[in-house]
Amino acid sequence: MTYGADRIYKKVEIIGVSSESIEGAIQAAVSRAQHSLERLSWFEVQDIRGHVSAEGKVSEYQVVLKVAFELK
Amino acid sequence: MTYGADRIYKKVEIIGVSSESIEGAIQAAVSRAQHSLERLSWFEVQDIRGHVSAEGKVSEYQVVLKVAFELK
Amino acid sequence: MTYGADRIYKKVEIIGVSSESIEGAIQAAVSRAQHSLERLSWFEVQDIRGHVSAEGKVSEYQVVLKVAFELK
Amino acid sequence: MTYGADRIYKKVEIIGVSSESIEGAIQAAVSRAQHSLERLSWFEVQDIRGHVSAEGKVSEYQVVLKVAFELK
Amino acid sequence: MTYGADRIYKKVEIIGVSSESIEGAIQAAVSRAQHSLERLSWFEVQDIRGHVSAEGKVSEYQVVLKVAFELK
Amino acid sequence: MTYGADRIYKKVEIIGVSSESIEGAIQAAVSRAQHSLERLSWFEVQDIRGHVSAEGKVSEYQVVLKVAFELK
Amino acid sequence: MTYGADRIYKKVEIIGVSSESIEGAIQAAVSRAQHSLERLSWFEVQDIRGHVSAEGKVSEYQVVLKVAFELK
Amino acid sequence: MTYGADRIYKKVEIIGVSSESIEGAIQAAVSRAQHSLERLSWFEVQDIRGHVSAEGKVSEYQVVLKVAFELK
Amino acid sequence: MTYGADRIYKKVEIIGVSSESIEGAIQAAVSRAQHSLERLSWFEVQDIRGHVSAEGKVSEYQVVLKVAFELK
Amino acid sequence: MTYGADRIYKKVEIIGVSSESIEGAIQAAVSRAQHSLERLSWFEVQDIRGHVSAEGKVSEYQVVLKVAFELK
Amino acid sequence: MTYGADRIYKKVEIIGVSSESIEGAIQAAVSRAQHSLERLSWFEVQDIRGHVSAEGKVSEYQVVLKVAFELK
Amino acid sequence: MTYGADRIYKKVEIIGVSSESIEGAIQAAVSRAQHSLERLSWFEVQDIRGHVSAEGKVSEYQVVLKVAFELK
Repeated sequence: MTYGADRIYKKVEIIGVSSESIEGAIQAAVSRAQHSLERLSWFEVQDIRGHVSAEGKVSEYQVVLKVAFELK
Repeated sequence: MTYGADRIYKKVEIIGVSSESIEGAIQAAVSRAQHSLERLSWFEVQDIRGHVSAEGKVSEYQVVLKVAFELK
Repeated sequence: MTYGADRIYKKVEIIGVSSESIEGAIQAAVSRAQHSLERLSWFEVQDIRGHVSAEGKVSEYQVVLKVAFELK
Repeated sequence: MTYGADRIYKKVEIIGVSSESIEGAIQAAVSRAQHSLERLSWFEVQDIRGHVSAEGKVSEYQVVLKVAFELK
Repeated sequence: MTYGADRIYKKVEIIGVSSESIEGAIQAAVSRAQHSLERLSWFEVQDIRGHVSAEGKVSEYQVVLKVAFELK
Repeated sequence: MTYGADRIYKKVEIIGVSSESIEGAIQAAVSRAQHSLERLSWFEVQDIRGHVSAEGKVSEYQVVLKVAFELK
Repeated sequence: MTYGADRIYKKVEIIGVSSESIEGAIQAAVSRAQHSLERLSWFEVQDIRGHVSAEGKVSEYQVVLKVAFELK
Repeated sequence: MTYGADRIYKKVEIIGVSSESIEGAIQAAVSRAQHSLERLSWFEVQDIRGHVSAEGKVSEYQVVLKVAFELK
Repeated sequence: MTYGADRIYKKVEIIGVSSESIEGAIQAAVSRAQHSLERLSWFEVQDIRGHVSAEGKVSEYQVVLKVAFELK
Repeated sequence: MTYGADRIYKKVEIIGVSSESIEGAIQAAVSRAQHSLERLSWFEVQDIRGHVSAEGKVSEYQVVLKVAFELK
Repeated sequence: MTYGADRIYKKVEIIGVSSESIEGAIQAAVSRAQHSLERLSWFEVQDIRGHVSAEGKVSEYQVVLKVAFELK
Repeated sequence: MTYGADRIYKKVEIIGVSSESIEGAIQAAVSRAQHSLERLSWFEVQDIRGHVSAEGKVSEYQVVLKVAFELK
C-alpha cells in the first residue's frame, strides 16, 4: 500500500459469537467476513455483549464489530 | 437458535418511510429488507425524522434503522 | 421524488482518500460508490483522518462517510 | 428547490406534548412552530419522554425535536 | 410538589414489549414498574428495538426506558 | 400546569459568564434570558468551560446551557 | 480495600435537589442514598439541570448522578 | 472584550450550502447569519453532509454549524 | 420465550473485578448478580478499566456492565 | 492575540481534587498545570466525580478537565 | 512497520489555526507537532471551529485534532 | 493515598499492540508508559481495533487507552 495513492475502503458491521472469549468472537467474525466479502484490512470493536445461562455462566460472547476492506 | 453455537450476524442500515406513523415506517423498511436481503432477526431504531408539508402537516416519517440477519 | 410516497433507502459506510483535500476524498468515495452501488442520493461525513509523511506533510486525507441510495 | 443553489436553513429546538401518541406530540410541535416561525422543511426527533399519572398511565408524551426552515 | 423543597429521585432502566406499537411497549413497562416499584413520575426513552418474524413482520417492539420515582 | 394539556416549549442555547462560580454563570445566563425571551421554565447545563489568567487563576467560568420556556 | 481481590460494585442512578448549589444537590443525593442503600464508595455526575422561578431566579439545582457501592 | 466582565452569548444552529467547498458553505452561513442576527463571534461545525447529482458528482456541501453572538 | 408475548426486563449496572482477564471480570460480575438478583438473560459491557501496580503490572481489570433479567 | 495569525495550542487532560467544591477542584488543577506546563489559556470540564466517606459525606470532588496552552 | 510486532503509540491533542482553510489549519498543526514532538504517523480531526470578523468573514479556522506518533 | 488531600492526576492517551490478546495489548501499553512516564495509577480502555492478515487471521489487537498518573 502506498499512502497518497487512490484507494477506497468499505466498512461492514458484523457480529461474531464465541462461547470462549472476546478474542474468539472477533476471530470468528473476521474469518466469516473474509470468506464472504473481500480480504479484510482491519476491524473496530463497536460493542461487547453476551448471553447468560440458567446456571449464571456466560454462555457466549457477542462482539459487534466493523470490518473494513479495500474496494478494488 | 442455540446459544453458544457458531453464528455470525450482519447489520445493514436502511431508512423506511411512511405517511402514517413511525411504526409504519419501521414495517415498510423491514418488509423491503426481508425481500432483498435475508430473513431478518431484529431491528434497532437509529433516528426518527420527517418531512413537513406546506400546510404544516407531517407528510412523512423517515425512520433510520439497522436490521440484522444471520449470515448462513 | 414525492414526499409521502413509498421509498426505502440504504446507507453504506465507505472511506475515500485524497492527497489534495477533504473535498477530494469525499468526491473520490462518492464516484467509486456510484460506480459499484446504485445512484447515490446524499452523503454524511462521519470522520476525517489522515496520514503524515516523514517530512511532516499531510500525505493524504481519509474521509469516512455514509452514502445513501434508494432501493428500487 | 434546486440543489447547488444558495440556501440557508435554521434549526430550532421545540418540545411537543400529546396525551395520545408520539406522532401526536410531533404534529402538535410542528403545527405550532409553523405558526410562529416560518414554513418548516423537516424535523428530527431528539428525545422522547413523558409523564406518568398516579394510576400508572402515560398521561402525556413529550417529544423534543429540531425543526428546520429556510431563511429567506 | 414544591420546587426548592427537599426531594430525591431514583431512575431505573426497564424494557417494555408490545406486539402493537411503541406506545404500547412504553405503557406496558410503566404499568409493570408502577406495580413493583413506587409511584412513577416520568419516563425517558433510551432505545427502540424489535423482533422480526419469519414472514418479515415486526412481531414485537422492545422499548428501553428509564423510569423515575421519588424516594420517600 | 396540567399534564396532558396542550403545551409547546422552545429551547434556546445561551452561555453565561461569572468570575465567581458555576452557579453564578448559570444565574447570570438565566436572568438575561428571562429578560429578553419569555418566562423560563427550566435549564440544562451543556458544558462548563473557563478562562485562565496570566497568574494561573480561573478568571471566569463560562457555562453553556439550554433554557426552556413555554410558547404561548 | 486490596486491588486484585474479589469485589463487585453496583451503580444506581439518583437525582438530588438543592436550592443552594450544585454541591448541595450532590450531597443531598449522596446522604439519602447512603441511608437507604449501602455505604457508598463514589459518585459520578451525569447531568446538571434546574428550575427557574417566575422572578427569573434559579429556584433549584437538580443533579443526576450515579452512586456506586460494594455488594457484600 | 475583558475576561471576567459580564457577558452573555447565544448560539443558533444554521445550515450553509455551497456547491464549491466546505469552507464555502461555512462562509455562506456565517454571512447570512451576520445579516439577520447580530455580529457573530465564532462558529462550531456540527455536521458535514451533501447532495450527489445523477452523474455521481457532489453537487453541494451542506454544513450544519452553531454560530454564537453576544447578547447586548 | 415467545416473541410478541408480554415480558418486562430490568437492567442493572454492576462492576466486576478480576486480576486475570476481562472475561474473568465479566463472569465474576454475572455470577454475583445472578446470586442476589434474578436469573440473568444477557449483559452489555459499558466500560473497561483497571488498576496498575507499583511494578507496572495490570493488577486488576474492572468491567462496568449492564445485566438484564426478566421481571416476573 | 490576533485572530488569523499563526498559533498552535495543545490540550492536556488533568484531574483536580478538592474537599470543598467543584470550583476548588478546577482551581487546584489549573494552578498545578500552570506550574509544570505553560501559561494556560482556557479549560474545559470533562467529568465531575467524587468520593464518599463512611459517614455519607462527599469527602472530595474530582474534576476531570482539559487545559489548553499555546505552543510557542 | 510490521503488523504483530511490538509497537506503542501516543496520541496528543493539538489545535491548528489557518485564515485560509480547514486543510491549512490541519497542516499547520501537523508541522508544528512534528517539530516539537516526534515523527507523526497519523491525525484524527476532533472538532472544527472558527472566528468571525466584524465584517462577517471567517477570519480563521481552528481545527482540534489528535496526532499520533510511535514511542521508540 | 488519603481522600480529601491535595492530589493532581494527568491522563495520557496511548495505544498498545499485541498479537495475542486484548489484555496483552493493555499490558504492553501500561508497561511502556510506566517506563517513560511516571508510576501509573489506572487505565481506561477507549477503543479496541486490530489488523487482519491476508489469511483472515487477527494479526494484532490495537487497544487505545488512557493511563493516569499522579503529578508529584
